[in-house]
Parts: sequence; C-alpha cells; structure tokens
Amino acid sequence: MSDQPSITAEELAHRLGGTLRGDGTRVIRAVATLEQAGPDTLSWVGSPDFLPQASKSKAGVLLVTEGCSLPPDRTVIRVTDPDVAVCEVLEYLAPPPDRIPPGVHPTAIVSPDAVVDGAAIGAHVHVGPGATVGAGTQIYPGVYVGARVTIGLDCVLWPNVVVRERVTIGDRVVIHPNATVGADGFSYLQRDGGHRKIPQIGSVVIEDDVEIGANSAIDRARSGVTRIGRGTKIDNLVQIGHNVEVGEDCIIIAQCGIGGSSSLGHHVILSGQVAITDHLRIGNGAQIAAKSLATSDIPDGRVVRGIPATDNHRFLREQASVRKFPKWMERLRTLTWRVQRLEEQISDTPQKSA
Amino acid sequence: MSDQPSITAEELAHRLGGTLRGDGTRVIRAVATLEQAGPDTLSWVGSPDFLPQASKSKAGVLLVTEGCSLPPDRTVIRVTDPDVAVCEVLEYLAPPPDRIPPGVHPTAIVSPDAVVDGAAIGAHVHVGPGATVGAGTQIYPGVYVGARVTIGLDCVLWPNVVVRERVTIGDRVVIHPNATVGADGFSYLQRDGGHRKIPQIGSVVIEDDVEIGANSAIDRARSGVTRIGRGTKIDNLVQIGHNVEVGEDCIIIAQCGIGGSSSLGHHVILSGQVAITDHLRIGNGAQIAAKSLATSDIPDGRVVRGIPATDNHRFLREQASVRKFPKWMERLRTLTWRVQRLEEQISDTPQKSA
Amino acid sequence: MSDQPSITAEELAHRLGGTLRGDGTRVIRAVATLEQAGPDTLSWVGSPDFLPQASKSKAGVLLVTEGCSLPPDRTVIRVTDPDVAVCEVLEYLAPPPDRIPPGVHPTAIVSPDAVVDGAAIGAHVHVGPGATVGAGTQIYPGVYVGARVTIGLDCVLWPNVVVRERVTIGDRVVIHPNATVGADGFSYLQRDGGHRKIPQIGSVVIEDDVEIGANSAIDRARSGVTRIGRGTKIDNLVQIGHNVEVGEDCIIIAQCGIGGSSSLGHHVILSGQVAITDHLRIGNGAQIAAKSLATSDIPDGRVVRGIPATDNHRFLREQASVRKFPKWMERLRTLTWRVQRLEEQISDTPQKSA
Repeated sequence: MSDQPSITAEELAHRLGGTLRGDGTRVIRAVATLEQAGPDTLSWVGSPDFLPQASKSKAGVLLVTEGCSLPPDRTVIRVTDPDVAVCEVLEYLAPPPDRIPPGVHPTAIVSPDAVVDGAAIGAHVHVGPGATVGAGTQIYPGVYVGARVTIGLDCVLWPNVVVRERVTIGDRVVIHPNATVGADGFSYLQRDGGHRKIPQIGSVVIEDDVEIGANSAIDRARSGVTRIGRGTKIDNLVQIGHNVEVGEDCIIIAQCGIGGSSSLGHHVILSGQVAITDHLRIGNGAQIAAKSLATSDIPDGRVVRGIPATDNHRFLREQASVRKFPKWMERLRTLTWRVQRLEEQISDTPQKSA
Repeated sequence: MSDQPSITAEELAHRLGGTLRGDGTRVIRAVATLEQAGPDTLSWVGSPDFLPQASKSKAGVLLVTEGCSLPPDRTVIRVTDPDVAVCEVLEYLAPPPDRIPPGVHPTAIVSPDAVVDGAAIGAHVHVGPGATVGAGTQIYPGVYVGARVTIGLDCVLWPNVVVRERVTIGDRVVIHPNATVGADGFSYLQRDGGHRKIPQIGSVVIEDDVEIGANSAIDRARSGVTRIGRGTKIDNLVQIGHNVEVGEDCIIIAQCGIGGSSSLGHHVILSGQVAITDHLRIGNGAQIAAKSLATSDIPDGRVVRGIPATDNHRFLREQASVRKFPKWMERLRTLTWRVQRLEEQISDTPQKSA
Repeated sequence: MSDQPSITAEELAHRLGGTLRGDGTRVIRAVATLEQAGPDTLSWVGSPDFLPQASKSKAGVLLVTEGCSLPPDRTVIRVTDPDVAVCEVLEYLAPPPDRIPPGVHPTAIVSPDAVVDGAAIGAHVHVGPGATVGAGTQIYPGVYVGARVTIGLDCVLWPNVVVRERVTIGDRVVIHPNATVGADGFSYLQRDGGHRKIPQIGSVVIEDDVEIGANSAIDRARSGVTRIGRGTKIDNLVQIGHNVEVGEDCIIIAQCGIGGSSSLGHHVILSGQVAITDHLRIGNGAQIAAKSLATSDIPDGRVVRGIPATDNHRFLREQASVRKFPKWMERLRTLTWRVQRLEEQISDTPQKSA
C-alpha cells in the first residue's frame, strides 16, 4: 500500500474550493460509503436523507452540501455538489496509473503506412495497413488494430482488445480488455437445409466519449454501419448486433444483448441482462428493467419490464395479481360451496309453479 | 471511402445472370433495406408482399423475382432468388479484406514439430508442439493454438482466439475474436465443504463449416469430446458446457448457454439468451424462443418458450390468461355479492321444514 | 490418439487402494457415464440407485462402493468413494499436459523490477513494473499482468488473460482464457444530461484456490476492493461488478451477473444466467435457481427462484396456480350461470314480504 497516495482535510478543502470545519490535519487515504468508512476514509452526504447515517459513520471527513448540519465534533467540508467532489477526491487518491510510454514498443508490429504519431503503442500490438491512431491514445499490449481502422485522440484500448478492419473510433473512447469491435454480424440465408453466410461488408462507428466494457462484442454491419452514439457507456459482456444504432448518452448495463438492426434513441437505459430482438425501435429516454425481453417498439420515455416487456405499472399489477391467485381460488371454492347450499335450499322451497 | 468498390447495374445484371430493365449505367456502392436505400444503393424484393415499399424506396437498383412488377421508371434486375443474389452483390462490393500473408510471421512462435504448410500465421501467434494447421487457413495475430491441436483447410481464426490442447477443428471453420475453445469444463465434487476439481481430460471437436462468435466459450469434455456438428453457426458470447453434443446445421443466437452433457439434434434453433440445463436432449428441428430456460427434454420439431420452457401455444395461452386475471377477479367479486344477496333473500323465504 | 495413456484394471485397483474382482488385464483408456461407456472405458456407480443401469452398461470396469453387488461376470473395483476415485482415474488417464517450460520466454516482456523467480512465463506475455509472480505459476502466451500485480504460488493463467494493475491473486488460482480481472467498475454520475465517469481507483483480491472461467470479467472497486473468497469457483462468461464481495466456497455457474457492491456469503450457489442487482446481501448457503433475478436480500440457506426471485416453494406454487387458471376461469363461468339460474328461481318464489 506504499503507493497509495494520501491528502489532508485542509488540502482537500482547498482543492475542492470547499469550506472546512473541524480538524484540517486529518489524513485521508480512501473513499467509502458511510457504513464502510473508517478514520482515514472520506465519505459523503449526497442529500439530507443520509444525515442519520452520517452521524453514525466512522468516516474521518465528510463531504456535505451547504444546508446539512452535523454534530460539531465531525470534520466536514462543505461543497456545492458532494457527488462531483467525490469524483475529484478519487482522482487525487488514485495510485499512479499503469501507462504505456509514448512511442512504439519494439515488439509492436505497426504497418509502415499506418499513422501513430503521438500515440503510445504497447508490446505485441498489431496495427494494420492504413490505420490511424490519434495523439494521446494508449494502445495496451496485445491489442489488434485492423487495416484502415481510425482511432481518435486520447483514447484507451486496454490489453487484448480486437478492433477489426475499417472500424472508426472517435476521441476519448475507452475500450476495456478483451472486447471485440467489428466482428462479422450473425446473418445467414437458409437454403437447401444449410446456412449460407451473408457477407458482412459494413463497419462500426464508435463516436466520441463512448466506453465499451470488458469482453463485450459489437458486430460490424452487413452493409453500412453499426453505430454507438456519443457519450454512451456500455458495460461488460454486452452483445450489440449488426446494423444496430445506439443513440447518444445511453447506459447499457452488463450482459445485455441487442438484436440486428434495432435502434436506441438517446438517453436510453438498459439494465442488466436485457435482450432486445431484431428490428425494434427503442425511444428516447426509454428504460428497460433488468432481465426483460423487448419484443416490440418502445415509445419515448416509457419504462418497461417483463418477458415480454410491457409497461412497468401494468407488469407490476399483473404480477401482484398472480401472487393473489391462490387466495382467489380459495374464495371461488367457498363461493361454489355457498351456491351449492343455496341450490339445495331452493330445491326444498315450494315454487310458484309447484 | 476511397476503398469502397462500386459496380454498374449493367455489370451486376451480367454477373448475376439476371435481366436488366432500366438504366444500366447506374452505379451501386452499397446494399440496404428498402427504407434505408439511396440512389447509389441496391435493395431487393424477397417476395411480392414488399412491392408497396419497393415502389416508395429510393434504391437506385432493385433485385426482384420474375413475377414482380414495378413502375417502369425503376431500374430493376430480375433474378431467380433475390436473397441469394444480394449475397453475391455484397461480395462484389466488399472492400479488400484484411488478410494475413501466407507463411509464418517472424514474431510468431511455431513449435518445430508443428505442421503449418500453406497456412498464414500472423504476428505474435503461438502454435504448440504437434499442432497441424491446414493450407489456406488464416491465423490472425495473438491467436493461441495449443499442443496437438488439428485445424483443417481454409479456416479463419480471428485475433486473440484461444484454442487449447488437443482440440480438433475441421475445414472452413471461422472463429471470431477472443473466442475460447477447449477451456476446462466446470465440474467439481463436493467434499468436506469444499469443491474438488474433476479433471477435464477430454477435448473438443468442431466439424466442418462451423462458425463460432466473438467472446464465446466452448468447454472441453471431462472425458471424451464436446462436439459442434457440421454447418452449425454460433453467435457471440455463447457458453457451451463440457460434453455437450450439438448436431448439424443448428443456429445458436448470442448469449445462449448450454449446460454440461446436454445434446442438440440437427437444425435446432436457439434464440438469444436461451439457457439449457444439464443432461437434456433437444430434438431435431426444435426451436427455443428468446430468453427461455429449458429444464426438460424437448421432442423433435417442438417450438417452446418460457421459464421453464413449455409448448409455445400453451405458454401464450397461459400468458394471455394472466393478462385477464384482474378482470376475472372483478367478476368473482360481483358474483360473491350476488350470492350474498341470494342468501339474504333465501333466509327471508319460508322453508318446507319451517 | 497415440498420446492417450492407458492403464489395466489391476494397476488401477492397486493405485486406488481398492479391491479388484474380475479380469485384472482389462485395459482402460477413458472414463464415461454408464450409458456411454464401452469395453475400454471405466464407469462408476455413485449409489445403489444406479445398479440397474450398471448391469446393462458396456463399461469394461466399474468402480463401486462396498455394499454394491453386480453380476459376477463384471470386472469391478470396490472403493470407499467412487466419485473421488473417478477423479483419480481421470488424472491417470490425462494426456501429457500442455505446460509452459519454467523461466521466461525470450519474447515475453518482463519489467526489470518484476519478480518472477520459479514461475513459467510464456511467449508474448507482458509483466508490468513491480509485479510479482510466484514459483510454480504458469503464465500462458498472450497474458497481460499489469503493474504491481501480485500472483501467488502454483497458479495457472491460461492464454490471453488480462489482469490489470494492483490486483492481488492468491495461491493455486486458475484463470481461464480471455478472462479479465480488474477492469474499471461501471459507475457514472449523471450531470447535465451526460455521464461523468467516477474514477475506479480500487482493486481486486482473488483468494486462494479460486477458479475463474473463460471470458469472465471481474471489475475493480471504485475504492477498496472487489473480493472473491477462498475456494470459490466461477464458470465462463460471468460478470462481477465493482466492490462485490463473494464469500468462500461459492459456485457461480456460467453467464451470471452480480451488480456493484452486492455481497455473497459462503457456500452460495448461483445457477446459470442468474442476475443480482446492486447493493444486495445473499446469505450463507443460499441458492438461486437458473435465470432468476434477485432484487432483494436473501437470508442464509434460502432457496429462491423467479423474476424477481422469491422463495422456491412459493414460486412453484404460484407457477402451478397460473397453469390452473384457464380451468378456474371455466369454473367461474359455470358458477356464474348457476347463480343466474338461482336468481331466476328466487324471483319466481313468493317472498315473506310479498
């Protein structure tokens, strides 16, 4: 842990532009939630709702908003936005990163006509003919950059990422280890009992500020492009099919799968293990709950859930009704018995016609 | 886009053996659906059902079957099978591929007793002792081929694929980036509160014309083999357990998982994110809908759906009945009220015994 | 198959410390289930329930417990624990493994200050500054070991595994091909319509005797550590989020996903494709059935199932009730008709008040 940086409360308050109250000499080495924090740990109070936990927390320093009041014995730093301030603190406390030195490692194979000026190309990397890697971009060991790939400025491709030919990647894109960008789409023609491969001659466009998780796969288009919109964040083990269009600023949690030619608007949120079948349109701001299966288009802003996915409130209502079903069966049994008793009574009763 | 090939309508008609009607000088650079096609794009009409869309399409050239009639101002090429013709057009329009030159790259480590004559072995590839790689096979950078692996003719192993020892791969097999073939099966003996690893000494056989998607994993057998049948196509992020037997010409969509020792007949279709538990038999031609969980054997030709998977029609009927449940609860409430009213009336009525 | 070892029944009985009855010269080359075994194959009878199948099996040799009686013409070896004995037989029959020779391959890039004494470092491996790899550990080709990573004794890192900076790995840990340990957690702050990355400055601790499957991903913590407890076994394509704590001796089957900051006790079993949302606590010995989604804490020892996961018996009861729903709708229809008939009769009956 000798490489773990530390910072005092006073220095922190100064850097964050916040107001310190309490012991400015306290040393902070880590960040943790209110429950898990210890004396050398900073925690934060994102809203007044957390004040009770904050009072009990063992955190050495607390980041709080202006309005929050805590016991006078606590060391607190008042800031405008504690959540953002925590991000800054994490940056101050980050151990030295594991960077690739600029230039081309002697074991890397870079095609003579590739342009990699200002980039850092690690050991055993392969950069194909006609490829361009922008300045400030880090290509870690074992990465494959195919022919005529374009990668922008200040990207990070972590080890063993594969980017196949002709893919275009914007600026500040991060691709985590073992991810695959630009493999063939999965698309066959059924003829004579067999599967004839439909050529996948298109490509993939990854726009600026996108992040792609470890071991995820984004397929190239049959013709045209598969596109991931600016600012979209994709978690690990996600599958994105050929010709999919993902809009800007979407969040796609781990192990989701999006079928060929489907599209997502902007600010869509897919929770974990969601599946979307082929050729669907998911509207702007739509949200799909974990483990749901979308089988039809989803309008803008709609929150859906279930297999197949349906309106969230309707789903929860139906689910609650299923839970009540055993009770209702019991009521139906009782009612049947009451009706039978009535029938017996009525057959004993003299009828007009009798 | 300077490397994007183009072709005229006249040349296309000639190569496809089709009949041109309209402007033979039109230049085609891409293929797209009827909705997305533009003037330099070819589209196709797979059946007369699509004629209305075809009339409105902006496609520069349309591939149609003999019987289809379109307005005389459209440039059309009549062919026997437009879907197959589209595959050919995609091949004509494919940019030059990103091929490995034949021979062994100087940075590749090929065991002295491995046989790789006529194969193309890329940078930083490892080929273990006793391995054989057939002529015409392309091994991209970063691939690991273990000891005594056999790979047939004209295969493609994309970058960073791992094929562990003693796996056998047929001819014309394609394995996409970061896929793993032949890792240990997941199999432990519970003893004394811990998990004792059961040795996985078997192997994997991949038959001819199989395709395996990016980041998929096919485990080796405990003893004997895990087998993927001729012509079967496997999408990305699929998990196939130890001792599984997959028949010929199956289609396995992304993110499916098949439990140890289960078997699939031929022409089985698994949609996305399907799971199959251990030791099951999925019959020839069976189909399992997306996100289903098979927990029992499935007969030949059966279409199933759900968690657990059940006959597709039964599943849809049950699902529809759940949707009706709130309405039926209402009816039961009304009926209860009517019975109560009857009971009150009858208690007011003189009985025989009274 | 010339590299396939074989062993006689007599030698086997001797090595296993068992009692041979029958033909000691029989040669065994493989192990298979009772149904699949042939004359050169050993099979085993784990409990007397399997005696009928054992009688019909074509296995050349059968491992049985003391009490089991089989026809006298069968060659059997009596042992205390046939399941454990099978593991030993598999070891005897294992073909020579595909080992990395001790020392550092000339193409590996090992940082001058890394310590790798007694380890086997394969071709094109990268070991970063300050890293330690313990004696007896095998690092296969293409593996990336980041700066200041610590790996213990007798581990195996199969090809193309990525272990990012500062991860700590215990002794006898096995990591299968293309797995990723220590990628950034997926964690963003929503501000101004965009997603601001929360720095992930923590790490991952993998304790002794853990196994991690092919193409799985275990994210590093935001701050602190993501921990996998001693003896836990993780299958292929599993996703483990940042700050997750997995206890000892858990079993996590393929394609499960565990959300950030959730924790598992010891001896938890997750079947295939289970998802666990963020910040949950799964108790010791809890079991979650295949394809379930846990959305709330699960007490010790509880068996749950469903989306969302609920008590297993309750789930099965509710599911059975859904199956009965069409029948109960029919009963409600009939009862409605009977009530209507009663109402008609009663309106025909003279009332007291009449």
